[in-house]
Amino acid sequence: MKIAVFDSGVGGLTVVKDILKAFPNASICYVGDTARVPYGTRSRQTIRQYARQISGFLFKQKIDILVVACNTVSSVALREIKKMSKVPVVGMIKPVTDEAVNFLGCRKIGVIGTNATINSRAYKNAIQKLNKKTKVIEMACPLFVPIAEEDLGKDEVAYMMARKYLRQSLRGVDCLILGCTHYPLLLGAIQKVLDKKVKILTCGEPAARKVGKLVGKVSDVIQKSRRKPKYVFYATDDPKKFQQMAKIFLGKKITKVKKLDLEKIV
Amino acid sequence: MKIAVFDSGVGGLTVVKDILKAFPNASICYVGDTARVPYGTRSRQTIRQYARQISGFLFKQKIDILVVACNTVSSVALREIKKMSKVPVVGMIKPVTDEAVNFLGCRKIGVIGTNATINSRAYKNAIQKLNKKTKVIEMACPLFVPIAEEDLGKDEVAYMMARKYLRQSLRGVDCLILGCTHYPLLLGAIQKVLDKKVKILTCGEPAARKVGKLVGKVSDVIQKSRRKPKYVFYATDDPKKFQQMAKIFLGKKITKVKKLDLEKIV
Repeated sequence: MKIAVFDSGVGGLTVVKDILKAFPNASICYVGDTARVPYGTRSRQTIRQYARQISGFLFKQKIDILVVACNTVSSVALREIKKMSKVPVVGMIKPVTDEAVNFLGCRKIGVIGTNATINSRAYKNAIQKLNKKTKVIEMACPLFVPIAEEDLGKDEVAYMMARKYLRQSLRGVDCLILGCTHYPLLLGAIQKVLDKKVKILTCGEPAARKVGKLVGKVSDVIQKSRRKPKYVFYATDDPKKFQQMAKIFLGKKITKVKKLDLEKIV
Repeated sequence: MKIAVFDSGVGGLTVVKDILKAFPNASICYVGDTARVPYGTRSRQTIRQYARQISGFLFKQKIDILVVACNTVSSVALREIKKMSKVPVVGMIKPVTDEAVNFLGCRKIGVIGTNATINSRAYKNAIQKLNKKTKVIEMACPLFVPIAEEDLGKDEVAYMMARKYLRQSLRGVDCLILGCTHYPLLLGAIQKVLDKKVKILTCGEPAARKVGKLVGKVSDVIQKSRRKPKYVFYATDDPKKFQQMAKIFLGKKITKVKKLDLEKIV
């Protein structure tokens, strides 16, 4: 089985990590749009245009499922991508909000993400569609992405910004959804400023479970398959830099990254 | 006289501020490539591709001079832009290094900038071309751009990162060149961690003086001109957001920003 993963950059690799934990034999075809990252500070219109272009490329790669491993794209362009697609499409928002509301029964949920994600209100809408009475506190934390990308997630600056963004605003929440695939790299700093009772949810694990539900039978097969899984990673900017960053986000080395030329896939 | 200004985003507005201080009657045609900002973390190849595209658009606007108000582009793509141009092109590096070496006679110069600028060694090469014996200490400060864009330049996080990046590395310098147009917004924090004797140079003022030298006669005319200067600002992403950010970087309101559609100027 071939799972396509689309992200604006390297953050989606934290989701790939969770997918591979659940399906060690799956093949992965990943695109990180590193030439235009970050998406989170851009307008909806621009994000949709970029999302159409990259998804269009992935749909040509004989994939079984597409995981949109970017909260920003999931927030503002998922419907459009689904319209284009003949295979199942998994975004970041539905799986994790399902878990928070239906499985954990949270009543007051905090959500943090990029400006575009928070401004879209996609999380708030998704949560309140599941349970109207659930309270949602949303907070954009725009500096968390560059902090993660500079590998400062464990540095004092991560703690300082977590305190600034979260301590006051998130009082009384049962759980906090990390609505950006970069944020797991600041987990320690985020935990430090929140009450210990607060359950912290990342998007990767619930999304991986959703993939399992959608391609369950196929994945049974692949678990037993003798075929060696293939990993193809594309970056729209320098493949070497992607490779270096991958260590931080995937937690292991990637041996081969291909350059995807945006001018050729317009 | 019409001065074109090209930047990857809003940082170049600090340069526009200096240009308008020197030439209050000049007309400005500005492009900020906010759909693909930041350039500073991207590869040379990608930066050159973006620079060709935006400069090509500006050369069609009947301009008298082009100011490349982006250190990253000045570092890696200036030669290419000059080749394309029929009007004078002013980058960020030559004017400020001239000032540091020839006018101030500095012997040990600190330069801070984005990863792309520092990795290009453009500043070091420019300084040592003027005086082989001058020592140069270069330091990338990648978190300064998002800090400036989030309007946190006067916040404690700016001071923390300035201390982290600069206190140890810049010991003994006579002057420090802020080799990124965003950095003047962190001036207070930067000053705080350096010895008071260190002279801090921004790129905007020397660049404005260079514009004066190159179009001196024309500018004499425009100083006396009765024509009302025209300001045209283009952003490749959401014009409204550009307008909001402009307040931080230009220090005053911009009334009109046009959207420049990248797909139409390929």
